[in-house]
Amino acid sequence: MSWPASTPPPPYYAVIFTSTRREADEGYAQAAQRMEELAVGRPGFLGIESAHEAGRGITVSYWTDLDAIREWKADMEHAEAQRLGRERWYERYSVRVARVERAYDFG
Amino acid sequence: MSWPASTPPPPYYAVIFTSTRREADEGYAQAAQRMEELAVGRPGFLGIESAHEAGRGITVSYWTDLDAIREWKADMEHAEAQRLGRERWYERYSVRVARVERAYDFG
Repeated sequence: MSWPASTPPPPYYAVIFTSTRREADEGYAQAAQRMEELAVGRPGFLGIESAHEAGRGITVSYWTDLDAIREWKADMEHAEAQRLGRERWYERYSVRVARVERAYDFG
Repeated sequence: MSWPASTPPPPYYAVIFTSTRREADEGYAQAAQRMEELAVGRPGFLGIESAHEAGRGITVSYWTDLDAIREWKADMEHAEAQRLGRERWYERYSVRVARVERAYDFG
C-alpha cells in the first residue's frame, strides 16, 4: 500500500486515532492490525497510515464519506465485543473525524 | 504535553503531515522537531501528536482556525528557506488540512 496514502482530490474524510498503550501487551499490535484489516477494501475506504513510537500510536484512515466510517466503526465494535475490548490495550485514546478540505504532496 | 492532545469540542482544524524520509539523515529528526517548535504556543495552536516508525512519520497538529494554520505554514517556509529545504529530508510527504467535526476520547 502506498505511503503516504494516495487519496483523491478533497473533499474526503479522515479518522485520526491516537492512543497510548498500557504496559507492553502483545494484544496492542494485534488490535492495531485488526483495525487496519477491517478498513482495507471496504466500500469508501481510500487509504490508511499508521506509526507507533514509544507506546504512542497514530493511525489515520481516509474515507469517501461519513457512512463508510460509520459502518467501519460498527464492524470494529462488533469485533471488539467478541474479544476483550479495546480498553484492555489502550490507556487512553482519541478518535477524531475530520473533513479533509485541502491537500498537497511532495515526491 | 498531554498525549493524545487535549483539544476543545469540535469544530477545530487538524493538519495531518505524513512522510517517508530518505536514507537515515540526522536532519530528519531535526526537521520534525522544528515543525513542532514553530507550532507550540502560537496563537490558535491547540496541540500536536507525532510518531515515527521505520522511516515513516505522522505528525498531526490541531488549530482553532485556518488563519492560524496559514501563519504557521508561512513561518515554516521561511525557516526552511534559511536552511536546506524540506526536500533534503523527505522522500515523499503529504499535507492534509481537515476540519474536525466529531471527537471522542477514552481514558
